[in-house]
Amino acid sequence: MELGLVGLGKMGGNMRERIRRAGHTVVGYDRNPEVADVHSLEELVGKLSAPRVVWVMVPAGEPTQSTVDQLAELLEPGDVVVDGGNSRWTDDEKHAGELAAKGIGFVDCGVSGGVWGLENGYALMYGGDAEHVARVQPVFDALKPEGDFGSVHAGKAGAGHFAKMVHNGIEYAMMQAYAEGWELLEKADSVTDVREVFRSWQEGTVIRSWLLDLAVNALDEDEHLDGLRGYAQDSGEGRWTVEAAIDNAVPLPAITASLFARFASRQEDSPQMKMIAALRNQFGGHAVEKK
Amino acid sequence: MELGLVGLGKMGGNMRERIRRAGHTVVGYDRNPEVADVHSLEELVGKLSAPRVVWVMVPAGEPTQSTVDQLAELLEPGDVVVDGGNSRWTDDEKHAGELAAKGIGFVDCGVSGGVWGLENGYALMYGGDAEHVARVQPVFDALKPEGDFGSVHAGKAGAGHFAKMVHNGIEYAMMQAYAEGWELLEKADSVTDVREVFRSWQEGTVIRSWLLDLAVNALDEDEHLDGLRGYAQDSGEGRWTVEAAIDNAVPLPAITASLFARFASRQEDSPQMKMIAALRNQFGGHAVEKK
Amino acid sequence: MELGLVGLGKMGGNMRERIRRAGHTVVGYDRNPEVADVHSLEELVGKLSAPRVVWVMVPAGEPTQSTVDQLAELLEPGDVVVDGGNSRWTDDEKHAGELAAKGIGFVDCGVSGGVWGLENGYALMYGGDAEHVARVQPVFDALKPEGDFGSVHAGKAGAGHFAKMVHNGIEYAMMQAYAEGWELLEKADSVTDVREVFRSWQEGTVIRSWLLDLAVNALDEDEHLDGLRGYAQDSGEGRWTVEAAIDNAVPLPAITASLFARFASRQEDSPQMKMIAALRNQFGGHAVEKK
Amino acid sequence: MELGLVGLGKMGGNMRERIRRAGHTVVGYDRNPEVADVHSLEELVGKLSAPRVVWVMVPAGEPTQSTVDQLAELLEPGDVVVDGGNSRWTDDEKHAGELAAKGIGFVDCGVSGGVWGLENGYALMYGGDAEHVARVQPVFDALKPEGDFGSVHAGKAGAGHFAKMVHNGIEYAMMQAYAEGWELLEKADSVTDVREVFRSWQEGTVIRSWLLDLAVNALDEDEHLDGLRGYAQDSGEGRWTVEAAIDNAVPLPAITASLFARFASRQEDSPQMKMIAALRNQFGGHAVEKK
Repeated sequence: MELGLVGLGKMGGNMRERIRRAGHTVVGYDRNPEVADVHSLEELVGKLSAPRVVWVMVPAGEPTQSTVDQLAELLEPGDVVVDGGNSRWTDDEKHAGELAAKGIGFVDCGVSGGVWGLENGYALMYGGDAEHVARVQPVFDALKPEGDFGSVHAGKAGAGHFAKMVHNGIEYAMMQAYAEGWELLEKADSVTDVREVFRSWQEGTVIRSWLLDLAVNALDEDEHLDGLRGYAQDSGEGRWTVEAAIDNAVPLPAITASLFARFASRQEDSPQMKMIAALRNQFGGHAVEKK
Repeated sequence: MELGLVGLGKMGGNMRERIRRAGHTVVGYDRNPEVADVHSLEELVGKLSAPRVVWVMVPAGEPTQSTVDQLAELLEPGDVVVDGGNSRWTDDEKHAGELAAKGIGFVDCGVSGGVWGLENGYALMYGGDAEHVARVQPVFDALKPEGDFGSVHAGKAGAGHFAKMVHNGIEYAMMQAYAEGWELLEKADSVTDVREVFRSWQEGTVIRSWLLDLAVNALDEDEHLDGLRGYAQDSGEGRWTVEAAIDNAVPLPAITASLFARFASRQEDSPQMKMIAALRNQFGGHAVEKK
Repeated sequence: MELGLVGLGKMGGNMRERIRRAGHTVVGYDRNPEVADVHSLEELVGKLSAPRVVWVMVPAGEPTQSTVDQLAELLEPGDVVVDGGNSRWTDDEKHAGELAAKGIGFVDCGVSGGVWGLENGYALMYGGDAEHVARVQPVFDALKPEGDFGSVHAGKAGAGHFAKMVHNGIEYAMMQAYAEGWELLEKADSVTDVREVFRSWQEGTVIRSWLLDLAVNALDEDEHLDGLRGYAQDSGEGRWTVEAAIDNAVPLPAITASLFARFASRQEDSPQMKMIAALRNQFGGHAVEKK
Repeated sequence: MELGLVGLGKMGGNMRERIRRAGHTVVGYDRNPEVADVHSLEELVGKLSAPRVVWVMVPAGEPTQSTVDQLAELLEPGDVVVDGGNSRWTDDEKHAGELAAKGIGFVDCGVSGGVWGLENGYALMYGGDAEHVARVQPVFDALKPEGDFGSVHAGKAGAGHFAKMVHNGIEYAMMQAYAEGWELLEKADSVTDVREVFRSWQEGTVIRSWLLDLAVNALDEDEHLDGLRGYAQDSGEGRWTVEAAIDNAVPLPAITASLFARFASRQEDSPQMKMIAALRNQFGGHAVEKK
């Protein structure tokens, strides 16, 4: 089939390659002319035969909104827009409505896979009406991993990004789990070779996983991670997961702890711990560290 | 080689079978005569040629202590005792010392694998002096999974159980991660088939793991887990992990949250939330639920 | 001065009384004619001399929005609307803008005090332009407690509710602190009279507070809180505090733990702990509780 | 009455003064001859008439143990030892037994009050047999604050320190509550004068407390706490509180979060966040900060 693909960054570029390898035609647009096949959204739409499918793979928020707005003007009834970026699920509901008003279909798709996706395939979680999903199915089949799993029609528009968001929330807490265990083993003096313990866990244990394999890779590159700072960004999905939990009155202690640990990792000094130090000084004359 | 094995419960019985399949001789003792090969520890020791290796696979605490005490009387210098149960690492240091005073070696071994171990092998983390570990190595090789991983000499006596303890702490937080994500998906109305989302995650995602596979198995048996109560025991290892963290001033927010969630799951009613309700009633006249 | 007061429930009714005791004129409107002084917002506005001050004391969300909308139609340039309810600070910014477009001033005011406010005064945190705040100042002075403290002009429109929101977030964690300590004392067998320990803490300790006094009151009414269920609602402010923290990348582990404890307290059974039980059963054959 | 007092540091020195002001005789011993009344424990015991009461006010652990050991040799049946330091409650049970074997009574006493105790009195929580407590009562009455509260006989030996330990656990979470709220107010741009908001909370609010008064004092000295580092030690009591909770299967999420925040505050860089960064780098090619 033919696919228009908007956004050819690290993810989009690799996805174009994987879809082409499956025998489909991809017309790619990017603001960077060096990677683009066409030089405008107008040209992209013009090169595709109706009914069209256009996959948007640009950053969430304003970039996605403005792309959807432009496509709403350029496309025709019967065409379908796929948002494969990291949009918040509430944006999907809005976009689906805006496009439906013009007779254009909408599918949202959460994509997992990172730099490994080109070779191993991308896990896909998508949402939207069955007729619109069916139109995109050949592309989904090209992108997904070999095997029985790796893609799911999760529900109506927004369900794909919602499922991907929860996936990332789980990912935060799993990473935190390994990280906490690693720090404890490194700090205590009982285990003499923490890396080999991690390596041994790759088979036969309850905690074997792809993330564990990656942890071993990382330790093989730098046994005590001496070359890294303990500093971690967070993407929107972790925050949205906690917000969705609050909306639904679901307690998420481990996922939220993982998000907060990232917040704290980015602080040069902790304001709240200054207040703790100040209070200790007030009531107990405890020594505080002055700057 | 010849091995004495004390404790032939669910774990010990399967381990005997796996070691025998590898061609070794196992003399097993258990208080339950129906499963035992011999009828006393004395008989077990008598059937083995010196220097002996005796593997203890009984519950942590008093049962392990009393078995070690009896073996200290029955065994001879040059023999080796392996504690393959779930002992706290601090007990290992004690046992190693007690046995060393009689010239008997000691190795501790954390064993992971559960009901899957007989066929897939057991992950093993062991600690002790190299000479004692070498004596047990053929048994370790018989028990461990196929492949390059699955067993590790983690350090001195106690290091095996310490590593296994941290493994279990990580396991608590990983299970909590999936559980939190599952509850949020079930509660929110966006995703219509949560089980299929979990199933799809088994390939291509960052969070694929053996535990995820088990979660899918569980959902295939009971899609919404309607037949279960939200009630979870905790073994000693989760508690000891947090205690070891406190001893080492290591923050473990996700693992500890997972432990506390289990504590709370076992309460019919929460005393602390009664106090919250009482305080709300005092200052705000908020409605409280009387019993 | 003259004040229009919309909403004469538990809070609004007592506030009318306290303002009147200070010698001001209050014209109160409520949907319940038994407590109202006038029978419509129109009548309320008609009874006040321009420039008017109208205090809105109705539930956050739609009730406040529709009252503000109606007042925007009924009032005149130079009048001032005060939102003394529990609105989210983001609503204040919206309301301030809508009213400003008609030349009407806006002040938001977070009010603390509960059932004790009539006699002891209400703590007030308000936001808005200085000229609008000045118009309401006599009412603030009537409502606030005796003494040097208890009211503050916290910043621009929205700052009052933001400050009150954070106050409530702190309150959640303080209540949780006492509740956790109480449960531990009750559960451990060391302390024989927990109530007397709480009572003793009311003087000389680091943790003495008004909330502690209330806890002692509650224990005097029901020593072990046997008559209550461990069930606690949460108002919007706790949730908004965590959301504001996420927006600002501020870690709030204790406040969030307190919010999640309330969520959990309202669940008959915990879905996430069902998943934990299911996973334990899958890998270990651990006994689970079937319903 | 006559009291022997061992340990005349910041706490002990002030306590001697307060007891003397109440008209009692205090014979004080300290390793520092400049503050001591006598030059040895032997001399201290010799100066007191039997039956004696000796109050030990030295650091927990080895210093307290060795003092108790020496007093066990020097004192006579009928004498009473009070441990007013910060011992773990489990030590009390041990000390009570050791002293009882010689006919010597034992009372443990948790003391709160810090640098404010000399003037305001010390909150006291004590444990032991009624007959031994009665012997110390005049000293307790001298030390406690004016008013009806501030001292309690909490139970058998160990109950005093247990109650004080929980007091400190609650204190951790209350301090954390204010600290979190303060950081959020400082970080968000809504409230323009955070210090004045804190000041206003001192009357009429649900969260008014002595700790809040101290926070205002601290902010008056340094409005944004610019002169402090966000670094906080923890005493044993916070750790023991969490350990006691684990022993009793009581979830303490807010208190534990507060303890972990202190642990994290003392780390130059966070090992666990290095692992998070390493994993992000492995799967996503996310930028990491190299040192």
